[in-house]
Amino acid sequence: MRIIGIDPGYAIVGFGIVDYIGGKFTVLDYGAITTDKDTPFPQRLCEIYDDYCLILDTWKPDALSIERLYFTNNQKTGIDVAQARGIIMMAAQQRNIEINEYTPLQVKQAVVGYGQAVKKQVQEMTRKILKLKTIPKPDDTADALAMTICHGQSSGSLIRNLKTNI
Amino acid sequence: MRIIGIDPGYAIVGFGIVDYIGGKFTVLDYGAITTDKDTPFPQRLCEIYDDYCLILDTWKPDALSIERLYFTNNQKTGIDVAQARGIIMMAAQQRNIEINEYTPLQVKQAVVGYGQAVKKQVQEMTRKILKLKTIPKPDDTADALAMTICHGQSSGSLIRNLKTNI
Repeated sequence: MRIIGIDPGYAIVGFGIVDYIGGKFTVLDYGAITTDKDTPFPQRLCEIYDDYCLILDTWKPDALSIERLYFTNNQKTGIDVAQARGIIMMAAQQRNIEINEYTPLQVKQAVVGYGQAVKKQVQEMTRKILKLKTIPKPDDTADALAMTICHGQSSGSLIRNLKTNI
Repeated sequence: MRIIGIDPGYAIVGFGIVDYIGGKFTVLDYGAITTDKDTPFPQRLCEIYDDYCLILDTWKPDALSIERLYFTNNQKTGIDVAQARGIIMMAAQQRNIEINEYTPLQVKQAVVGYGQAVKKQVQEMTRKILKLKTIPKPDDTADALAMTICHGQSSGSLIRNLKTNI
């Protein structure tokens, strides 16, 4: 199964592409789509869509793993992240890519093993699991790679559970 | 100038298309894009995009008039409206349609003449200005038509202001 993990945003969209086969992860690509703060917002949305579609069409993932969105302090930022996230969801759906949403708690549990893990622990475990020499930068990219692990582990558990029930 | 007004949403997207020429409005089309609550959310986003692109490509508006988004009570609903709104903004930008955002206060002032107007007053004035026999249903469609008046009046005032400054 090929998984794309996305950390949604409008200034930086982190992405990671992995193959998850036989319980093992192979990293294919990772990085970030960035847009300029001086570009009008609707144009930034178009740039994200174009770059993201190119990534989807290059790597043809089977599944998208994306964090569930919550609003915290800054409502304006939250609205703009949600507007970009809608486009990310739609572009995946247009290609019949399976869309999976996870909470931050689920990501921490899947990657580190417990929900109280701090960001640095998640990043370090992501690096180890994916056998990377260093933690990818920016944080959005590392977070996107953690999303791929979360979906891989979750779907793995599901298969194990199904087997247990046979 | 041809204007499309949009009341963004994910269950109902109200739209209205008018020509605004020489200070007069001519209504060309109005209605609502609707999606089924039992359809998975990313699929609803695709349906909105497809229907909305068809409307844009049929009527080829010069300008989009859309309400600025604020979150009130229901955060979950707000996030989903924002996700749909991002797609509406992007599809307009993809066609180089000028995007104009107005606050609810600006819409009330433009349509009724004062910012404390209630919804019913805005709807009734929209009907009168656009010379419609009845107030269009659902409310989302009436709200979308009010957006077209807001942009027409605003751009009219701008032109008047420019002329005054010559």
